Amino acid sequence: MFKEPLQKIVDNVEGGIAGLVMGFDGIAVESYTREGHKMDITTVGMEFSFILTQVRKAAEILDVGSVQEVSIKAEKLLIVIRVLSPEYFLALALSPEGNFGKGRYLMRVVAPRLQAEL
Amino acid sequence: MFKEPLQKIVDNVEGGIAGLVMGFDGIAVESYTREGHKMDITTVGMEFSFILTQVRKAAEILDVGSVQEVSIKAEKLLIVIRVLSPEYFLALALSPEGNFGKGRYLMRVVAPRLQAEL
Repeated sequence: MFKEPLQKIVDNVEGGIAGLVMGFDGIAVESYTREGHKMDITTVGMEFSFILTQVRKAAEILDVGSVQEVSIKAEKLLIVIRVLSPEYFLALALSPEGNFGKGRYLMRVVAPRLQAEL
Repeated sequence: MFKEPLQKIVDNVEGGIAGLVMGFDGIAVESYTREGHKMDITTVGMEFSFILTQVRKAAEILDVGSVQEVSIKAEKLLIVIRVLSPEYFLALALSPEGNFGKGRYLMRVVAPRLQAEL
């Protein structure tokens, strides 16, 4: 149900490693890791679910409307997060040289299909 | 010292609103707000300095190297943050339709000048 859209995103973006649908409570709904990669995307998502909650609180305090997207670029990993609903988010892990723009684009295109199931 | 490079970034990006150099402790070094805008970029930076510290902790736990860039897109505001040093970061506030790619590019280009002064 979620595996196929996740795979579609991860496999079609240069440098795509893994994808995840997770609740803001840190509980994963579904994940997909590209063949040949060993990444614990659930652990990554859990770490960032807490941060996302903090980001949403900050956005509320600052009155800038709801948070739609967060991206984090570290030396060895690029994470793009898209909020799907007040309860769930979609995360994509890319290599640092991965195609960030295409990853964001695919997430935007696939999001409605995921949202329809949540 | 920091005002001119901040102005260079903010004024040269479509949708640029304000720029800021701040310590991770939430204390601003310098800020610049584009003419015709009223934005308390220091308050925005303070809210996100705490989050950035959490992001750095998460990156350490996940062993993904140092955090270089964080971006947050809310309904009414787009924030791009670039880490300048272990103590300081550069933040750019854009309208949601602003030119994200150009903002990131200008931040990357101007960063060494700011870093040389920190």
